Amino acid sequence: MAIKTRFTEAFGVEHPIVQGGMQWVGYAEMVAPVANAGGLGFLTALTQPTPEDLAKEIARTKEMTDKPFGVNLTILPAIKPPPYAEYRQAIIEGGIKVVETAGYKPQEHIDHFKQHDIKIIHKCTAVRHALSAERMGADAISIDGFECAGHPGEDDIPGLILIPAAANKVSVPMLASGGFGDGRGLAAALALGADGINMGTRFCVTQEAPIHENFKRQMVENDERDTKLIFRTLHNTARVMKNAVSSEVVEIERKGGAKFEDVQHLVAGVRGRKAMELGDTDDGIWSAGQVQGLIDDIPTVKDLIDRIVAEAEDVIKARMNGMLS
Amino acid sequence: MAIKTRFTEAFGVEHPIVQGGMQWVGYAEMVAPVANAGGLGFLTALTQPTPEDLAKEIARTKEMTDKPFGVNLTILPAIKPPPYAEYRQAIIEGGIKVVETAGYKPQEHIDHFKQHDIKIIHKCTAVRHALSAERMGADAISIDGFECAGHPGEDDIPGLILIPAAANKVSVPMLASGGFGDGRGLAAALALGADGINMGTRFCVTQEAPIHENFKRQMVENDERDTKLIFRTLHNTARVMKNAVSSEVVEIERKGGAKFEDVQHLVAGVRGRKAMELGDTDDGIWSAGQVQGLIDDIPTVKDLIDRIVAEAEDVIKARMNGMLS
Repeated sequence: MAIKTRFTEAFGVEHPIVQGGMQWVGYAEMVAPVANAGGLGFLTALTQPTPEDLAKEIARTKEMTDKPFGVNLTILPAIKPPPYAEYRQAIIEGGIKVVETAGYKPQEHIDHFKQHDIKIIHKCTAVRHALSAERMGADAISIDGFECAGHPGEDDIPGLILIPAAANKVSVPMLASGGFGDGRGLAAALALGADGINMGTRFCVTQEAPIHENFKRQMVENDERDTKLIFRTLHNTARVMKNAVSSEVVEIERKGGAKFEDVQHLVAGVRGRKAMELGDTDDGIWSAGQVQGLIDDIPTVKDLIDRIVAEAEDVIKARMNGMLS
Repeated sequence: MAIKTRFTEAFGVEHPIVQGGMQWVGYAEMVAPVANAGGLGFLTALTQPTPEDLAKEIARTKEMTDKPFGVNLTILPAIKPPPYAEYRQAIIEGGIKVVETAGYKPQEHIDHFKQHDIKIIHKCTAVRHALSAERMGADAISIDGFECAGHPGEDDIPGLILIPAAANKVSVPMLASGGFGDGRGLAAALALGADGINMGTRFCVTQEAPIHENFKRQMVENDERDTKLIFRTLHNTARVMKNAVSSEVVEIERKGGAKFEDVQHLVAGVRGRKAMELGDTDDGIWSAGQVQGLIDDIPTVKDLIDRIVAEAEDVIKARMNGMLS
């Protein structure tokens, strides 16, 4: 049972299924079971407080799997940026062979990684950014639609349009991201021109995901309408789980263009971390995609990946071939 | 060359491709070539000023095709509604066998049509509305995602999520609507659980579409980002082509919650009709979906439908089957 694409061939993984960067979730506990199940998992570099901690997390993941895995490096515009060069060094010295970049101006990072034969998947939300990353040397593009958890950009183009629009112009293998959680979605992504899928929210709702059980149960309970777009007025839109806090932020924004200072106390710092520990889903801000509406259970990572591949195969073999006359 | 689905079987059409209601476009000139090419086209009842005019338009369409076609009846909440009962009578007496309903509270319309053995496709933008229409007796559902031209509703759920979410619950055949324009999209819709696709914007950009050449050329030129959502503050969101007028409406809304009176002069009446006649794409308000970004030519309706079916077949047979190992 397998689906082989340009992506699985170029990156040497069994299944065209990726668990990309997930802030506060992309620990060894998440990445190793994805690797063991034949997917491609990514540690999230900036979830580790220092480059030394990232080096330790890479080593810890290697104790949990013999299969390849990667590291996500998200580049944020910041007055006092994290020590990116040292994070890169930890990745290189850790023997990592694939990095997912995301964010602004990845050129220097791509250049450095490629000097060490590390493959790059650049994640972005617009065709023009995909083409720019390809010119910079990215080996694959992960194109992220309006449905996604976290930052969908400001263009609001869903995958149904964004994937074929990008496929028309991008030459390197392409992952479809945002809105994927089952085999129907994988088959659709392949039909639209992608070579695989990236999933975040769906991987959060697995036995192994290192987040409080209450958040997993909440995402099972939620439907596709239970997300909010916050920070639109700040031109830094994020799709998050609908709860008391995100609803309050949207209301503040609606009343007249929030400044970050107006909502900062609601979304960050001690309050959010404490809510995470306590499993208080109605406090803090939590990334969650619309794919919540397609999530009904909390399987193991291996059961999830096997099921998605089997379902996609069945959709192609039985359902779609059966329609051809 | 054919793709057979529950929809093509139940509605007796050759291809699982529908041209649903399109205000000011759904005339005989649009519908007849769709029918002749093996698709299912719909006249738009309320584009005709009176029920008598609709009766004449049905007769005129029958002179242009021997194949079946339908009529769209959109139910608008209005203080002084159009004479719906008389429009229904024109449809029934015209020998029409399939009606696309859309809008609010279709029960009395569905009941009346079903007494005359007319099949109903109800178009809606949310799973809960689809289930409600199914309970009312609809024979098929056309589920319309956030990508679509015209009214996407207020939930902002794209097809990638909305189609499988609806397929999980709806029993009757289902058309996927919004964002479709090529064979990749048709294959994706079938993978996601739909039994066919509905297209609007793509059918506007054909040789036969009865709209000014300038609008067709503009939609070819536009990319997926060249739409605007207007009337969001009025809870009556519409996706329209980005131009000077729609941009001005959005700006008025952004500045503080427009009343319809504030923008009415920009969008309606003589100014819009004159712009349509003159082919002035930068005046008036024009429905257009994000699928503009996937439209590169102005083919005949028959060439378009044949190409979509052939491409979908090729995606399934060559591309997707080729990935199975």
